[in-house]
Amino acid sequence: MPGNSFGELFKITTCGESHGEAIAVIIDGCPPGLEISENDIQKELDRRKPGQSQITSPREEKDVIHIFSGVFEGKTTGTPILLLAYNTDTKPTDYEHLKNIYRPSHADFTYLKKYGLRDFRGSSRASARETLARVAAGAIAKKYLKKKLNIEIFSYVESVGNIKTDIDYRAVSIENIEKNIVRCPDEAIAKKMIALIEEVKNDGDSIGGVIRGIIKNVPIGLGEPVFDKLNADLGKAMLSINAVKGFEIGSGFSGCSMRGSEHNDSFTVVNDNVEIEKNDAGGILGGISSGADIYFRVAFKPVSTINKKQHTVNIHDEPVILSATGRHDPCVLPRAVPIVDGMSALVILDQYLRNKAQNG
Amino acid sequence: MPGNSFGELFKITTCGESHGEAIAVIIDGCPPGLEISENDIQKELDRRKPGQSQITSPREEKDVIHIFSGVFEGKTTGTPILLLAYNTDTKPTDYEHLKNIYRPSHADFTYLKKYGLRDFRGSSRASARETLARVAAGAIAKKYLKKKLNIEIFSYVESVGNIKTDIDYRAVSIENIEKNIVRCPDEAIAKKMIALIEEVKNDGDSIGGVIRGIIKNVPIGLGEPVFDKLNADLGKAMLSINAVKGFEIGSGFSGCSMRGSEHNDSFTVVNDNVEIEKNDAGGILGGISSGADIYFRVAFKPVSTINKKQHTVNIHDEPVILSATGRHDPCVLPRAVPIVDGMSALVILDQYLRNKAQNG
Amino acid sequence: MPGNSFGELFKITTCGESHGEAIAVIIDGCPPGLEISENDIQKELDRRKPGQSQITSPREEKDVIHIFSGVFEGKTTGTPILLLAYNTDTKPTDYEHLKNIYRPSHADFTYLKKYGLRDFRGSSRASARETLARVAAGAIAKKYLKKKLNIEIFSYVESVGNIKTDIDYRAVSIENIEKNIVRCPDEAIAKKMIALIEEVKNDGDSIGGVIRGIIKNVPIGLGEPVFDKLNADLGKAMLSINAVKGFEIGSGFSGCSMRGSEHNDSFTVVNDNVEIEKNDAGGILGGISSGADIYFRVAFKPVSTINKKQHTVNIHDEPVILSATGRHDPCVLPRAVPIVDGMSALVILDQYLRNKAQNG
Amino acid sequence: MPGNSFGELFKITTCGESHGEAIAVIIDGCPPGLEISENDIQKELDRRKPGQSQITSPREEKDVIHIFSGVFEGKTTGTPILLLAYNTDTKPTDYEHLKNIYRPSHADFTYLKKYGLRDFRGSSRASARETLARVAAGAIAKKYLKKKLNIEIFSYVESVGNIKTDIDYRAVSIENIEKNIVRCPDEAIAKKMIALIEEVKNDGDSIGGVIRGIIKNVPIGLGEPVFDKLNADLGKAMLSINAVKGFEIGSGFSGCSMRGSEHNDSFTVVNDNVEIEKNDAGGILGGISSGADIYFRVAFKPVSTINKKQHTVNIHDEPVILSATGRHDPCVLPRAVPIVDGMSALVILDQYLRNKAQNG
Repeated sequence: MPGNSFGELFKITTCGESHGEAIAVIIDGCPPGLEISENDIQKELDRRKPGQSQITSPREEKDVIHIFSGVFEGKTTGTPILLLAYNTDTKPTDYEHLKNIYRPSHADFTYLKKYGLRDFRGSSRASARETLARVAAGAIAKKYLKKKLNIEIFSYVESVGNIKTDIDYRAVSIENIEKNIVRCPDEAIAKKMIALIEEVKNDGDSIGGVIRGIIKNVPIGLGEPVFDKLNADLGKAMLSINAVKGFEIGSGFSGCSMRGSEHNDSFTVVNDNVEIEKNDAGGILGGISSGADIYFRVAFKPVSTINKKQHTVNIHDEPVILSATGRHDPCVLPRAVPIVDGMSALVILDQYLRNKAQNG
Repeated sequence: MPGNSFGELFKITTCGESHGEAIAVIIDGCPPGLEISENDIQKELDRRKPGQSQITSPREEKDVIHIFSGVFEGKTTGTPILLLAYNTDTKPTDYEHLKNIYRPSHADFTYLKKYGLRDFRGSSRASARETLARVAAGAIAKKYLKKKLNIEIFSYVESVGNIKTDIDYRAVSIENIEKNIVRCPDEAIAKKMIALIEEVKNDGDSIGGVIRGIIKNVPIGLGEPVFDKLNADLGKAMLSINAVKGFEIGSGFSGCSMRGSEHNDSFTVVNDNVEIEKNDAGGILGGISSGADIYFRVAFKPVSTINKKQHTVNIHDEPVILSATGRHDPCVLPRAVPIVDGMSALVILDQYLRNKAQNG
Repeated sequence: MPGNSFGELFKITTCGESHGEAIAVIIDGCPPGLEISENDIQKELDRRKPGQSQITSPREEKDVIHIFSGVFEGKTTGTPILLLAYNTDTKPTDYEHLKNIYRPSHADFTYLKKYGLRDFRGSSRASARETLARVAAGAIAKKYLKKKLNIEIFSYVESVGNIKTDIDYRAVSIENIEKNIVRCPDEAIAKKMIALIEEVKNDGDSIGGVIRGIIKNVPIGLGEPVFDKLNADLGKAMLSINAVKGFEIGSGFSGCSMRGSEHNDSFTVVNDNVEIEKNDAGGILGGISSGADIYFRVAFKPVSTINKKQHTVNIHDEPVILSATGRHDPCVLPRAVPIVDGMSALVILDQYLRNKAQNG
Repeated sequence: MPGNSFGELFKITTCGESHGEAIAVIIDGCPPGLEISENDIQKELDRRKPGQSQITSPREEKDVIHIFSGVFEGKTTGTPILLLAYNTDTKPTDYEHLKNIYRPSHADFTYLKKYGLRDFRGSSRASARETLARVAAGAIAKKYLKKKLNIEIFSYVESVGNIKTDIDYRAVSIENIEKNIVRCPDEAIAKKMIALIEEVKNDGDSIGGVIRGIIKNVPIGLGEPVFDKLNADLGKAMLSINAVKGFEIGSGFSGCSMRGSEHNDSFTVVNDNVEIEKNDAGGILGGISSGADIYFRVAFKPVSTINKKQHTVNIHDEPVILSATGRHDPCVLPRAVPIVDGMSALVILDQYLRNKAQNG
């Protein structure tokens, strides 16, 4: 099965190159009767689009979304939904000089070797521009989850380089996240992050960081053991995003040095409800949502495109020097926040539908 | 789609409860003509079986594997392979007192809520005993990869609690890993790990740790963007293993604080071959194998079963005290090494077959 | 994706060769809480087993089914169900002389060419013995559909050779079908069919025929356009059965010579319910069940195994004479009735679960 | 899994309503390096488009295809291909009077019941206009098969109503099929068919018929037993086309009255090659292509839209009279020929890629 689909029952299939005509996605399996407008989707896309602030790529893409099918009189009909955004700020000439070069840590080399030929305009299909489709589809999933199930999905930038906030995720609201351009709800830390990104940008360099994702009000029972555990699906979703190198849920790597007696989450009764006391598990037990908050961390490496000279190799296997390469994001994290949100929504809605089915 | 299958073209479907009659797996899509014997599989299972040393669960399971179909005159025929191991040391009475209790950090609660009823014998399907099927299927994949493509797959225990080896994975061989019962190739550190596990065991507690996985000689081109990137599939595979809370590839979380100019891996020419200089990417570029070594880390939490009193809740939503619960592993990591190997093999062979198909 | 799985949400994966150790199936996605016993399954298998009458193969297979997993205290648990029946009457020596021969209209030739090697014991995986697994899994689906939704599934032999009943399917009951060994509810015609089969058998030959399948009380809404239309899935299910060469639903091929004004089924109101007047469509409109009876016809060719001399070719591409080949069914139709039932049940339950999911 | 995808490795996902903005398809898994142009696709679409002759619907749709992604410098790149054709001749007001009516034998009733709401513009997603996407995707598959494997795919109208040609399919060429507007290679019969369709059209009625499909030069080995047999996949493909009520391969229903000794196809040696003497099997043995010609028949009922008064029911469950309903095809068969071709190509290429994968 080719790799451009995600989800089993709320299934998306994406297409489009960064410098082709458009980025698009077909959503198959969206429940009928959901009110959805282009504006609902555009709001999420605007959080992802380039040029939104001084710390993002200056590429001028409006990323205007068009609904081509599957919605009638403002509601989803149960038939497949095609969403499409035209690429407008494509300057193919920008890339002519990169045609024959393997940019370090880019996918030029592996795409050429895998497919035997390569669309050399930008990173083409390997570009993070592809995530536009994920955010668009995710916006519909997110709206469904909020409206029908009151599930809340959000994420924020927890660290950029060595600048890290220690804020408790339970104190974070979506409003606080959107208060600043770096999408860190800790204002003091946000300022430092912005300063660091600007410094990196001026230096022609790039920088990595960590995004924390949160999903609240998830009903008990989502996740399909033994392979499609909810944590496994969330992990795959996040690791499929460009530049992601790590994923951890609940206690994550820090739990490795703990003892069971310390790590175990006790059940308790609060107001006649069973609750989980501490939730080091991160809201998932045995691969199935427990009703407690789901929280996880996603590691983003620094983007590979930098404005510095680098030595590398061309397609004739000759050493070459690659010089500055134009417009790029010094740090992808502020724009990656809605991508993490979108992928979370896709996973949760898919697993919600699967759970509905399995109970017959 | 239900959750007990893994892989698209080398597809496994597993079944069996920890205290039911058997654990089994059907492998569909194994290429024909591979020489395979029960012994080939048994060798891997013996690395996973309980009771193999003083630091594992004393449960007496021989885990004898039977090939029921798909192999004729010692070779795979291209038809589905059924592998089955009977459960022999099941003592259901051991679990009668746990019938109505939600054990902390176990899946009793979520399984009951999801399915409406629960097989309360042991952890049943949520037990790590389920991974027997993965190791058995993985043994066949591993043999294929080694024999036909010379791909080497191995992993080792890198840390237990706070005891950690700093050995370079490039210096590690499968022989060194098997030299001691904890499966850490650093003898001095291995001794400390064993001592720690024994201490934890005597204390009736459990402890977590990290396994490092390595895959060498992977051909360039495996992985199907944009969702089924090789790193995303490896991540999902590992995160679907019981007790795993985190996964990172290449630089992982440590790359988040680096700059692009530092993190980028340059291409270079060595003996007329294009090589990757530093490989912080961990052998995968744009979701596709680059030919460089693949390496990753997997975080295991401490197992939830401990021999200590814990407060929790029963199915009538009443607070109860859970006392000691019998035979368990104080630390799963030594037995988890072949599971990580097996899952790696399943992912690599599946992606190898997918790559073959896509080139038409 | 390999070809031994069927269904998306009620998914079965089968394995086992005709002369191997066993035939087995894993059912993944069975809703929890269904009461099921080995006896429930055995009843259906007994309708399929060889040696059940003088007009079937004398091979002595008891086809005793074992439930290995997924059922606890008499109920399904939502985890995968392994069903297995051992092969007991395998005489591999029967087949030694066929080792190198391509039997006419058998799959020996195509299996050898496709896989490069061949399990030559009987027809192995190409044997209709494989359908045992379908009937076993179908028995569970059928029970679920009857118990939870009152859906009735049955089928009968409509013709053998040129002997054909004109009975109206609406007058047929499951009891009438089981009244005779040929499974034709028209007693007078049944006698003629039996006589014909005995004649054919004595002649060392075989004969084809048609089975009519009926599904009643299907809720409106099953079927997923545009590719997984209910009729398309039923057609695939039937065409995947050994020896099937044709499928038609509702008016089928006879509708090709009709005009729209004659073929169209009007809607009407009966006792405040919308009903379909004539149902030439066969219970499905636009790929979705309409609530009217589903009925279809399945064409079975005469079985390829006959006790007559035939000229053919061996694996060295030399002409050879193939002589009589032992135990076989002169006519598969009586034993194929439960197979058609089972496949119907698998399709309907799968589509029922898919429809549940899609409405969110 | 929702129902708008077809194929496992050459996978298409379609979308678009008959009176929405566009019909589109994403093809995922097309091998890289295939030369493809919009013109290649347009040629096939022009055979399907309305208004092409006096015996088709007068709806004015140019069906101009646009390639949005996946092709670079005239070649496929291995990334997903988006094909899109705008709907231009949509007159929604045409359908306002049908908004609340269940047209006989149409899907209005089942769509409304299944999804709870309905896009009432034309038949929307249930319209055969959806098959545009199949023909477009099929054109790429067909080109690949012809260019790389010399596989020939064609089909023709064998009967309209009771007018039937007895021409031997082996004497038919694609050129002869295209010589007349009804796409029957038997000129004398074609004239009668055209006359019949015109008569039916003048009468405001519609008429059914049979298409025969042929696939030549298929390599031995395509088809994945036991469920994804080549005949089963072809059957599903055809039965998923609007108005199709039956499918038969090789001897089909006529084989049911034959004896094995008559039906069996002997192997023989011709010029050192193994050949199949008679091919009643229709080119497939045990679900796997045998190298012999594949041929099959597809039954199309008369289209449901007619210009005659019909009694039916509205959404308020009241009896109503439906009068003439505008532009329609009196007989879909001439336009269905490229649809059958396209679906054949999709199945064969998908199975070709699957077969490549399975051999490792």
